[in-house]
Amino acid sequence: MEKPIIAIVGTGAVGAYYGGRLARHGHDVHFLLRGDYDAVKRDGWTIRSRDGDFTLPPEAVHAYDDPAKMPKADLVIVTLKTTANDQFERLIAPLLHDGTAILTLQNGLGNEERLADLFGAQRVMGGMAFVCINRISPGVVHHIAEGMITLGELNGLAGPRVQGVAEMLRSSKIPCRVLDNLKYGRWEKLVWNVPFNGLSTVLDQTTDLLLGTEAGTQLVRALMTEVLAGARGVGVELPTTLIDAKIEQTRGMGPYKTSMHLDLLAGRALEVEAIFGEPVRAAMRAGVAVPRLQTLYGLLRMKDRPSRSES
Amino acid sequence: MEKPIIAIVGTGAVGAYYGGRLARHGHDVHFLLRGDYDAVKRDGWTIRSRDGDFTLPPEAVHAYDDPAKMPKADLVIVTLKTTANDQFERLIAPLLHDGTAILTLQNGLGNEERLADLFGAQRVMGGMAFVCINRISPGVVHHIAEGMITLGELNGLAGPRVQGVAEMLRSSKIPCRVLDNLKYGRWEKLVWNVPFNGLSTVLDQTTDLLLGTEAGTQLVRALMTEVLAGARGVGVELPTTLIDAKIEQTRGMGPYKTSMHLDLLAGRALEVEAIFGEPVRAAMRAGVAVPRLQTLYGLLRMKDRPSRSES
Repeated sequence: MEKPIIAIVGTGAVGAYYGGRLARHGHDVHFLLRGDYDAVKRDGWTIRSRDGDFTLPPEAVHAYDDPAKMPKADLVIVTLKTTANDQFERLIAPLLHDGTAILTLQNGLGNEERLADLFGAQRVMGGMAFVCINRISPGVVHHIAEGMITLGELNGLAGPRVQGVAEMLRSSKIPCRVLDNLKYGRWEKLVWNVPFNGLSTVLDQTTDLLLGTEAGTQLVRALMTEVLAGARGVGVELPTTLIDAKIEQTRGMGPYKTSMHLDLLAGRALEVEAIFGEPVRAAMRAGVAVPRLQTLYGLLRMKDRPSRSES
Repeated sequence: MEKPIIAIVGTGAVGAYYGGRLARHGHDVHFLLRGDYDAVKRDGWTIRSRDGDFTLPPEAVHAYDDPAKMPKADLVIVTLKTTANDQFERLIAPLLHDGTAILTLQNGLGNEERLADLFGAQRVMGGMAFVCINRISPGVVHHIAEGMITLGELNGLAGPRVQGVAEMLRSSKIPCRVLDNLKYGRWEKLVWNVPFNGLSTVLDQTTDLLLGTEAGTQLVRALMTEVLAGARGVGVELPTTLIDAKIEQTRGMGPYKTSMHLDLLAGRALEVEAIFGEPVRAAMRAGVAVPRLQTLYGLLRMKDRPSRSES
């Protein structure tokens, strides 16, 4: 059997890290780049990882600045920032043949549905990357901690396709877990993302400061409780023990800067709609009141500057 | 009849301005000062006002740095920041004789009740100062706009005492309105203070920016709606037309910095409990849910730095 062609669309730190691992383990990976295109063409990828550093020399990296120049792919992995989701058609359509599958590793809700609307639901899988990665400089990425990908089919149970993708990831030393219910995974991740991304960004505080006061811990709990209520409204029953578990886990992370907080500090657009707007709308459609979530959503919209451009 | 002795306790910009006007019109005013004591002793008060500048030379100003050195007063006007309310006993008790009345012009809820608990409810009146004043430098205050004081008795209808105080203020060119229901006035002021002080401080934005986006205007409205619900819960029926009226009025104010926002920028303690904590607790005691107000309260507690000292 021929090696499947994998396209990484929207290669930031996450795309570089996972695509880099796949390429290093012999997979046929094609990167669609923007800001880092020149650097990667010249120097390839440098991945500093607590699991062992590695480099991919430029002659071993397929890098592109235009999807029209890329081969049709068997699997498109989407790591675009959700604030650029209006670019899906332009960036992804040229890569598709009849059998191309799409896996989005983006944050928040609504990404799979948008891909399904554009390209057909049967193509779409979704996954959550639990990983701390920073892009240090063009072409250089630092993998700090974690790394697990949790993935599933948009519609229906985990079948051979998603199991195959998981196998491929595992063979590239990427820990993987397959879900029978992707929605469960998406909402579970929101239980952390909503309070910590939201409050850290509104207050410009690291997670240890958020949990360092009674007021902060109360607010984190109240927001998590609303996310659980929203999830229940859309048929996802998450255990309330998640609240204590996620708070304890976060205390262990020390003075951690969330991804949205880093975006704010770097002057980049914030992923407000995927992480806040979509969950608020989903809860409201289900008739569940989420006033604290709405308040945070409103504050983040006001904190976000539409004039900010993507880095 | 002898001239009544008036003590101004906690003389910041508000105390200097109103006390200064009273003194200028021949009243016997005694100022308790902290930071500005030396400057006022040396240079007196300079009041720059859009209604006409005036100065009070040092020999015409009774300034003190210790309440024990002050005469017993017939009327104590409290303009202390609410974050220093734990100083009431120390600052006010030495000034009281059996008939001393107390008028607090402080922000938010709970001040009259605290004074009543300490010194007896029969002494206590409350008032709201609708005024834009800045302290420019020690002993120098700039009166920018407005100036009306709205006042009433803590318990019961407006009687001769509060009418007498209003008359005295009016005779000193301070516009005045007497309320039969002080609580009504307090909650009405919160309809503005809660959204604009709160959001401007959390987001570090002037009021025109808050009202410059759909997200901001929605949030302002939602918060005002909760304040109205809280007020209703404690028996204060405010008209919902207040919402549009206050928003329109604020649009006319341009790029206005709220008092709490100014406190934040100057590194001073924030009046979080008086403007947010007390209303949240009052609503909750009345069984009214105010989740947006609670969220903002939590954010402000996290924004406030207990280590900040009063200026």
